[in-house]
Amino acid sequence: MQDGIANEGEKSGAGFIKQMAIDAVIFGFHDNQLKVLLIRYKHSGHFALPGGFIGEKENLDDAARRVASERTGLKDIYLEQFYVFGDYSRYDPAPFRAVVGHNQVSPPDDHWLLQRFISVGYYALVDFVAAKPTPAAIFDSCDWYELENMPALIQDHTKIVQKALEALRANLDHKLVGFNLLPQNFTMGELQKLYETILNKKLLRPAFQRKMLSLGIMERVAKKYSGGAHKAPYLYRFVPGRKTGDDTK
Amino acid sequence: MQDGIANEGEKSGAGFIKQMAIDAVIFGFHDNQLKVLLIRYKHSGHFALPGGFIGEKENLDDAARRVASERTGLKDIYLEQFYVFGDYSRYDPAPFRAVVGHNQVSPPDDHWLLQRFISVGYYALVDFVAAKPTPAAIFDSCDWYELENMPALIQDHTKIVQKALEALRANLDHKLVGFNLLPQNFTMGELQKLYETILNKKLLRPAFQRKMLSLGIMERVAKKYSGGAHKAPYLYRFVPGRKTGDDTK
Repeated sequence: MQDGIANEGEKSGAGFIKQMAIDAVIFGFHDNQLKVLLIRYKHSGHFALPGGFIGEKENLDDAARRVASERTGLKDIYLEQFYVFGDYSRYDPAPFRAVVGHNQVSPPDDHWLLQRFISVGYYALVDFVAAKPTPAAIFDSCDWYELENMPALIQDHTKIVQKALEALRANLDHKLVGFNLLPQNFTMGELQKLYETILNKKLLRPAFQRKMLSLGIMERVAKKYSGGAHKAPYLYRFVPGRKTGDDTK
Repeated sequence: MQDGIANEGEKSGAGFIKQMAIDAVIFGFHDNQLKVLLIRYKHSGHFALPGGFIGEKENLDDAARRVASERTGLKDIYLEQFYVFGDYSRYDPAPFRAVVGHNQVSPPDDHWLLQRFISVGYYALVDFVAAKPTPAAIFDSCDWYELENMPALIQDHTKIVQKALEALRANLDHKLVGFNLLPQNFTMGELQKLYETILNKKLLRPAFQRKMLSLGIMERVAKKYSGGAHKAPYLYRFVPGRKTGDDTK
């Protein structure tokens, strides 16, 4: 298991493809808010997306899955490749000098982590409640941030988040990817809130409910218990085997 | 101007990012058929997509534009990045041994072109009539092939074409990318044929025409001359400035 640049392989770059990285935009949904997982580097305080490198004999998708699994503790994560960030202008080794050089007076300019990287962006959709944010040895934090309230990120990472959100919106309907952000059982209201949050607009309940039920991919499980006087909403779950698949599998 | 691996830089790999390539699926539309530009390597006879490498200080999109321009003689090409092909199983240096080694008894295994490459797929949409297919020094041909009638391609290039076609279909409506395949003036019939060919299904003329005209991006230019007795169809062109833009610009 790879653990940031704390291990020997990442110190020297041995065993990894050079100048190519993965950045993972890991989305979670909680309290009617879309959240994204960010890490902070020790020795510099810079915030960034969780990222990693591709082993010489590793599939690109597997490398992305490994990165997302290491930061969330989850397996079977829904992942989607959405864009490659390859502008030369994104090359900015400054944030990594402090990380690479904290035990050295001055890291050599030809250190493999200080080269230009082209980064493949993946977004991951995880169940917020099940995920256990886990920092690597070189991070002093790994936590959820509201999308509307992120700290400043290194390089073009803010743009990468924005582009991931656009891809998520575009895939919400035809790939039904949003379901991956929900727990096993959910109410129609929760599902609608999720859609409204991602799309950033209000939806009409009857039309939304009709559309979702017509897809034939969810079923009612039980009446939700409610101690109050209000009518308890139905709980739904996915019909096994009908949930939309992970493109990368 | 880069010219295949005939120049010194590509012989040694100097000046290029290693283990990363671009493959360009260049589509043209002619005689109601969707065509794709393929090259054939000298010394091996292998057919492949036109491809290239990324200069150390070159933007990824610019590298793709350079590859597409060199093979078509066109500038201002509509290009779209659509997927990164990074499975380890696509690594197959065999087709390149003959190309790299044709002046040597046996090319060294550590030759940079015989390493594993991760490839960024771009599709390009060009005006078939304006394009001038141009082989590089190491190709003995660069020509259009019907999508339905392609020769066997190296590595996973057939899969790359298929994935490009899927992306083109998905973008046909919301990005209106198909217009880039037409000449300056075109008839409604030609536009419909283009859509039918890409989508591989028949469309109803009145609904199609209504939908296209409602977009407000095309205007009638003149009555098409017709020597025959049949009613000549109207010619259309894009309203300047309304044509859908190139994402990579």
